[in-house]
Amino acid sequence: MKLTVLGFNSAVPTVRSHPTAQLLVIRNRHFLIDCGEGTQVQLRKAQAKFSKINHIFISHLHGDHIFGLIGLISSFQLLGRNISITIYGPKGIKELIETQLRLTESYANFNLIFRELTSKESELIYEDEKVTVHTIPLHHRIYTNGFLFREKPKLRKLNIDVISKYPEIKICDYQNLKLGKDFICENGTVLKNKDLTSSPNYSYSYAFCSDTVYNPDIIPLLKDVDVLYHESTFLNDLKDMAYKTGHSTALQAAQIAKDANVKYLILGHFSNRYTDISVFKKEAETVFPNIILPEELSTIDFKEL
Amino acid sequence: MKLTVLGFNSAVPTVRSHPTAQLLVIRNRHFLIDCGEGTQVQLRKAQAKFSKINHIFISHLHGDHIFGLIGLISSFQLLGRNISITIYGPKGIKELIETQLRLTESYANFNLIFRELTSKESELIYEDEKVTVHTIPLHHRIYTNGFLFREKPKLRKLNIDVISKYPEIKICDYQNLKLGKDFICENGTVLKNKDLTSSPNYSYSYAFCSDTVYNPDIIPLLKDVDVLYHESTFLNDLKDMAYKTGHSTALQAAQIAKDANVKYLILGHFSNRYTDISVFKKEAETVFPNIILPEELSTIDFKEL
Repeated sequence: MKLTVLGFNSAVPTVRSHPTAQLLVIRNRHFLIDCGEGTQVQLRKAQAKFSKINHIFISHLHGDHIFGLIGLISSFQLLGRNISITIYGPKGIKELIETQLRLTESYANFNLIFRELTSKESELIYEDEKVTVHTIPLHHRIYTNGFLFREKPKLRKLNIDVISKYPEIKICDYQNLKLGKDFICENGTVLKNKDLTSSPNYSYSYAFCSDTVYNPDIIPLLKDVDVLYHESTFLNDLKDMAYKTGHSTALQAAQIAKDANVKYLILGHFSNRYTDISVFKKEAETVFPNIILPEELSTIDFKEL
Repeated sequence: MKLTVLGFNSAVPTVRSHPTAQLLVIRNRHFLIDCGEGTQVQLRKAQAKFSKINHIFISHLHGDHIFGLIGLISSFQLLGRNISITIYGPKGIKELIETQLRLTESYANFNLIFRELTSKESELIYEDEKVTVHTIPLHHRIYTNGFLFREKPKLRKLNIDVISKYPEIKICDYQNLKLGKDFICENGTVLKNKDLTSSPNYSYSYAFCSDTVYNPDIIPLLKDVDVLYHESTFLNDLKDMAYKTGHSTALQAAQIAKDANVKYLILGHFSNRYTDISVFKKEAETVFPNIILPEELSTIDFKEL
């Protein structure tokens, strides 16, 4: 799993930094998460392959998370895209995009599929043979979801050196071994799976939570994830303002990370009032040690954490 | 009159350059012309004063001319704007913006006035005591207007040295002198205005034409303007493609400039297929000498041309 933070500031785009957008690459799936204005240029700067982005997850319909989406879709079209794309986001996102496509006379050449979200409970919204995505219901001024990305448990690894000693085991048996099954020889001897295979590679998980007030209800969903991104718009001296505007502080984000026992916490969605974002890390570290401050266009490889 | 080119490429935003947007400052009025994605950040880079932009002129509803508008309006709101803003653009622009405001729950705190354009003839769409703006009907794939900005004729300048020799001329008479009227003394003597005043300062004009096929019908509207911006998406070897896509070539833009007897021609809206834009200048100079290639964020002061 590799995460490229394309932008992490809040509200108004600045010369210094871009609004929320992240590219998560997981088992060769390229998932775009949120899409503030200017995201398509950030994707270019990150040398992302536009054609590989087939799924876009939008947390909520505030401008700093959505205003770059129509431009990206429009560019997909101009670049001759013909592969369908699925957009997951709050109810209304279909009307938002389709109204713009209609009025700008920019009909997409590809299939644009909307999966509009309305549930206030966590739900499975994406699943294939290797990956699942669940929503994380958040509390903001407007209907908002975070997203939990999980690699499914991987197959056990074959111990070829051991297996090769048993000519009875054919290639067509490998899949069952990978799935953890014992091998029964023709003479009835049982070869234990744990002798023929070793533990599968680790399956990573990533939780994206923006924007939200401090909300301990999400902790069970985040339990033990490898990396949590949790917004921290303000420092804790402004926790009343954070609550009023539907946001969290760095301290609150760290408390969520600690209580959910996550491995690493990425902070973000910083208010433009702070010019030096290291203050967020300092505050969060008083509660939780493994804090990552995002850098625009830098990629976090989960294996290397 | 000062023109800052904020972006000048066509279609898809790139790392290299931004889509169409220009800021025209004329007699302390700040007019934004077109607003592709990322324009608000370009305005920041140009150190433009957001609060002074009270009129926005949108040529047409293609994304590379409009997708930055909702973000700019949203930022105006977040920055606490309370002065009304007027947006001039094709019919549909009101629905485009209001749908986004409604679905993103970002109602503006200021009065957002739409002047929707439908006429196929040139019309006066803005006038105050110093400036006029007329539309320039263009031919593109979608309903499109250029805009012609003119300073009104200025007042004659008082020759104070001469005037002070006539105590009969009071300060309250100055306005009539500036307007070109003679002064009649109490004894009936007529003092000729041309002896009391000198010619007014020059009144500048600027014409913005993007996007359009080569269309000589606009020449009478552009006659003798100081600066013409005319799109030149392609070079002339692709003139068939230019026509097919509703665009012009550098040679065609230069022909319009020559036939309209303008003083300077700014080229722009270059196709991304050209990495070196100096080829546009070279081609245009074969027809018309005074070609300006835009530079992002550079300001052209009409007095210094």
